[in-house]
Parts: sequence; C-alpha cells; structure tokens
Amino acid sequence: MDLTARAAELDAEDPLAHLRAEFDLPPGTVYLDGNSLGAPLRRVADQLQRVVREQWGGRLIRSWSEGWWEAPRRVGERIAPLLGAAPGQVVVADSTSVNVFKALVGAVRLAPGRSEIVVDAATFPTDGYIATSAAELTGRVLRTADIDDLPAVLGDRTAVVLLNHVDYRTGRLHDMAAVTARVHAAGARVVWDLCHSVGVLPLTLDALGVDLAVGCTYKFLNGGPGAPAFLYVRRDLQEAFDQPLSGWGGHREPFAMAPDYVPAEGIERGRCGTPDILSLLALESALEVWDGVALADVRAKGLSLTGFFIECVTELPAPGTVEVLTPGDERRGHQVSLRHPDAEAVMTELIAREVIGDFRAPDVLRFGFAPLYVTHADALHAARTLADVLG
Amino acid sequence: MDLTARAAELDAEDPLAHLRAEFDLPPGTVYLDGNSLGAPLRRVADQLQRVVREQWGGRLIRSWSEGWWEAPRRVGERIAPLLGAAPGQVVVADSTSVNVFKALVGAVRLAPGRSEIVVDAATFPTDGYIATSAAELTGRVLRTADIDDLPAVLGDRTAVVLLNHVDYRTGRLHDMAAVTARVHAAGARVVWDLCHSVGVLPLTLDALGVDLAVGCTYKFLNGGPGAPAFLYVRRDLQEAFDQPLSGWGGHREPFAMAPDYVPAEGIERGRCGTPDILSLLALESALEVWDGVALADVRAKGLSLTGFFIECVTELPAPGTVEVLTPGDERRGHQVSLRHPDAEAVMTELIAREVIGDFRAPDVLRFGFAPLYVTHADALHAARTLADVLG
Repeated sequence: MDLTARAAELDAEDPLAHLRAEFDLPPGTVYLDGNSLGAPLRRVADQLQRVVREQWGGRLIRSWSEGWWEAPRRVGERIAPLLGAAPGQVVVADSTSVNVFKALVGAVRLAPGRSEIVVDAATFPTDGYIATSAAELTGRVLRTADIDDLPAVLGDRTAVVLLNHVDYRTGRLHDMAAVTARVHAAGARVVWDLCHSVGVLPLTLDALGVDLAVGCTYKFLNGGPGAPAFLYVRRDLQEAFDQPLSGWGGHREPFAMAPDYVPAEGIERGRCGTPDILSLLALESALEVWDGVALADVRAKGLSLTGFFIECVTELPAPGTVEVLTPGDERRGHQVSLRHPDAEAVMTELIAREVIGDFRAPDVLRFGFAPLYVTHADALHAARTLADVLG
Repeated sequence: MDLTARAAELDAEDPLAHLRAEFDLPPGTVYLDGNSLGAPLRRVADQLQRVVREQWGGRLIRSWSEGWWEAPRRVGERIAPLLGAAPGQVVVADSTSVNVFKALVGAVRLAPGRSEIVVDAATFPTDGYIATSAAELTGRVLRTADIDDLPAVLGDRTAVVLLNHVDYRTGRLHDMAAVTARVHAAGARVVWDLCHSVGVLPLTLDALGVDLAVGCTYKFLNGGPGAPAFLYVRRDLQEAFDQPLSGWGGHREPFAMAPDYVPAEGIERGRCGTPDILSLLALESALEVWDGVALADVRAKGLSLTGFFIECVTELPAPGTVEVLTPGDERRGHQVSLRHPDAEAVMTELIAREVIGDFRAPDVLRFGFAPLYVTHADALHAARTLADVLG
C-alpha cells in the first residue's frame, strides 16, 4: 500500500480524530511544534471573554472568593490524572524554572546531611541553570551525569537528582520506573521534569513513588504561551517540604496577613505570590479537552504518528540526507528529531511552506506530533515537503 | 455649599473625567477597591481575543519571534515613565513575591561583607516572608524596624533595606527621598515595594538614585488579577546584579540552549522562565490608558478624592463612630483606612449595597480611590452608605 493510502487508513481508524475540530488551527498549516507551544482550543478565547467581562469586570474583587483564590489547586487537580497522581498533590503556579527552584531547594532540605545535587547532562538548559543557583545558595556541589551513567555517580552524598523524562533534543524517553528506583536505592530524592511527557503517555507518579515533579502546561497540554507550570509533591513529603519562595500564596492563612510565615498544610505550600488568573483560567479551560480521553489512545496514536513520520522521512528524501536522532522503538516521546547540516535554513523553508516544526542549534530539526490535533496525513505532507526542500 | 453640590463641582472640574468611560464597571456599583484589584479597561477583552485568535492560533510558534519574547522588556518600558525611570531599567515578569526574592538576594550579593537585611516592621506580609527566606539562604540576619526608627538600625552591617512606599493598612505614604538618602548614608541598598504607589503619584526613582524596586501591576495599573509584576534595577547596578532565579529567560542567548548560564547584559537578566504572554499582553493593553495622562493630575485628583471622603466620613456618621487611620495631610496614598470594631460586618453590608471596599483584620475598613475611574460623587455615595450602615 502506498503512503497516501496508509495515512488515510490510519486516520480513518483514529479514535481521537474528532478532537481536532476543538482546536483553532489555520487552514493549510501543518503544525508540528506542539511540543514547544500547543495549539489553542477554540473554547479558550470565549473563556477569557467570560473571565474578563463577567468575573473581573462584573464581580471585581469579589471574584477572589468566588473561585479565583483556589484556582492553583483546582487546576492542579485537573492535571493530576494525567500524572497518575491522587488528589492533593499538584498545584499550578509560576513558571517551570521557578518550580524547579522550589523543588530542588525543598528536596535538599529533606536530606540535610547530603552534599550533592545531580543533574542529567542532557538536561533542558534552564533546569541546569536553576540547579546551579540552587546548589550555590544551599552550599551543595552540583554534579552532572549522563542518565545512563547514574549508578557511577549516585551515593550517600546525593541529596537529589533532577532529570528530564524526555530529552528535548533527541526525543528519547527515559525509563522513569528504573531510574526512580535507582535514585531511591541511593537514598536520594528524584525530581522529574515532565515538560515533554505530560499529555504524551500515561504517567504513574504515585505508583512509582516519585518524590517531586515539575512540568509546563503550554506544550502538549495546550495551556497557552507561558501558561503557569505545575509542581507535584508526594503527599507524605508535603509536611516536611520547605520551599524557599515562601510568598503569601503558600501561607496557611493567607488573608490573616500574619507577620510570620506558616506554610499551608498541603500542596498549597508550593504556591508563592498572587496567582495569575487570566492565564490559569485559560489553562483550566484548555484542560477540559482531556475529559474522557484515554491516555493509552493518546500514546498509541503518538507512537503511530512518530513511527509513520520516521518511515516517511526514511523513504522519501534521498538516502543519507537526514539522520534520525529519535529512537525507533518505544523509548521516545512524541517528537522526531532529525539531524541535517543546514537544519536552520531547512526549517526556515519548511515554515515558509506552512510546515511548522522548529530548529535547535546546531543542526537539529524537531517535529512534534500532538495526538489531539495532528493526523497521519499531516505527517506525510510534512515528510513530502521536507523531501522537496532537500531535493 | 452642601456635599452634593461640592461633589458635583469637583467632578465637573476633573481633567481625568473622560477616562472613566474606558473602564468596564458594573452600573450602580461604587468600586473603591482599585488599590487591591484595579478595574478592567474595556480594550483588554478585545486584546485577549486578538492575542488568542490571531497571534497564538494564527501564527502559532512564530509569535515568539514576532513580539512575544521581548514583551517583558517592552511592557517594562511602558511602566518606566510612571516610575521616573529612563529606558532599560524595568522588566515585567513573575509575581511581586518572586521579584522581592530576586531583588533581595541580588542586593545582598552587591554587598558581600554586610550581614543584615532590614525590613519595615509594617511591611506587606509577603515581603517579610520572602525576606526571611532570602536571609536564611544567604546566611544574613533579618532585622525588622519601624520606618521611623531606621537611623537606630542602619549601620555598616546593613546590606539592604526593604520598604513599602505606602503602608497597606493605614495608607500612610513614606518620604522616599529622605528614607533613600538615609539608607544610602549607611552605605546600604534600598529596595522599594511600590505596589500601592505606582500609578498614584509621580515617582522619581532615577532622580533619587533608588537601587532596586518592585511592584505589582494589578492595583492602580489595572493589569488584571495576578498580572505579572515589575522589577527595576538602576542601570549602573545591572552589570553586578546577580539574581538567584537564573532561568533561561534571563540568559544572554536564551535560544542558544547553552549549558552554562550567562546573564543578559541589561535588565533582561531580571527575567527567569518563559514569560506568561496572555497576562503580559493584557497588561500591555491596559497600560495604554496612561498615554497622555499627567501623573500630577492623577495625584491631585487622588488627594482631592481621599480628602473629600475623609471630610464626608468625618461629617456624616455620628461623631466618634469611625477613626480615620490615614494621614490627613499629603503623606498618604490613594486609600483611606477607617477603624471600626465591627469592620468585617460593616464591610460585608457595604458590599451588599454595592459599595465595594475591603477589610483588613482585625478592625480596618479600606477604601481605595483610583483617580482614573472614581468620582467625588462615588466618594460621597460611599460615605452616605457607610453612615447609613453605622446609623
């Protein structure tokens, strides 16, 4: 069967096909950058109208006690099922970078006698920058290690290990169960950065005993550009979790305006300042699309899309033109990374032809496949356009 | 002349009267809580439609290079004139609490040999909470002092002093020039929290040589609930300003994805994570209302509104029923605080009658007067309603 027929057949069998209509995507564009910025749900623009006109304008300050103040926890509860987390462990506030800082300093304080913070050498850069700062402020040594070499690095000096579930450059998916067990065997805490895996596959944080996790909401969760990030703290660690950005939002009685900081009892202690309501409620609206969606279907479609795209880019451009960096087996997220010496110019030309992926220096083309709105026909069209650009 | 006629005359002379029509306020409501949450500009809902539909939906990831990435600085430049700041010194990102943390740790690092952080004893609580954390992480001693007693506390151990320009409970406005000079005479740095004074009177940070400042944008700047806050760092301090939330947003080459953190050359080093675009661009739109507005007019009207309200609440309720906590002279912001033993119940009843102020424990009624949309008739109506509730 030729690729066109294959794409049509795969799309015809897709149990998620009906969801594409919920997204506001420009006609004629093949959007393969949902791993960087998810597409808008149609409902979000309407939700923002209601929030601004009815809640902010109509109710003014009263809205703080009519649902706004609790939004960081309430939106966290909407994300919890995507993480495999029981209620009461996820809060949405601040950026991913800020939450990495909270998580790392908080984790170091859980292990006062341990002197090292370990970070995956292939980490998303901002995680490494923040880890450097957290190490400096807490007087810890920062070590970097390839995730495959962790056993050689972990030991009784290790306080916490910060890891990215999916490598943002290659698209490689790490084995959360095995790595978490390895970190725990050394008596250390793990902080998983889930930016590139939340909304991609069924996560099981509770079942694996993960300590802490952070992640953004603007990639596969479609929360909007720079939407607030989430922080997961396992329930039994919360009472001892002492995070350094102790703003009034995390206070046990925020409106008592008490002179001393007393952290909230539960996950709310992960909050800091006044929550950013417009973005939070836009995100809340975007998350409704996950109601009734089975993450197993999302994962199956993502593997199908990325597998089909790898097949197409192996077949269509002249052999040897691009190198596939992403694992061909199931150890991958929902992005495919290709190496090409002129990657930047190639991506510019693809975007000019309305096939939108992105470029990562020095030579990586990235294509993200968001199963809620990307089709196999999109994947084929992208591969054909790439072959045309390269040919 | 009776109060009704006085209010009408004052409103007829108001050079800012035309601005009220730009705000989306419910008919029949007297809104006196703009010092807590400013009212929405009508243009903001439309702006959010454009941002979501045209920029996010229409341009997708491309919008990051079509104005989004630079928004923290660009919106900062819109706020700069309200602060008396030349360009290149203000960035908008994160919450006020997070910016207090950046400013305090950064200020401590400017004075490595000094061992103390000083905070105004009457500070807005979150500032004190964050200062406690910053002191702990940097190994400094935290001292609190009444702002009038600063001379007894300042010395060569003082690294930095964190002060609120307006006391959030009493409405008292501090003398920024005198206090800044006092802090500088001790060789220390000052961080001003301008949450309750930005948009109230002409600020002159550059002229006074203020070191650092932070402030929120959702009170008198009407940016929206939890809108991102600003950070001011005086230009000549920027090169040495080493703030601890070193996320990729503050990197010199954020898109190079380099392994090591190198701070941006200018005020951008005050950024941390991915900027929250929906809220930032809503704020940007709200700030347009200040074009062509003279802050001297704003200040004059604010003093007139608060003065007239103080006169009304002195005259209308039975003598001795409420105590005015706010200074009667010009040492006040644009709020009036009244003490009453049943303040909470009184405010609940006022709000039920659509006169919206707020309550601060244990016994303070607060009424904010935002000169861009509040009238003297509103002030009189509020005072009459209060007298009625108390009578």
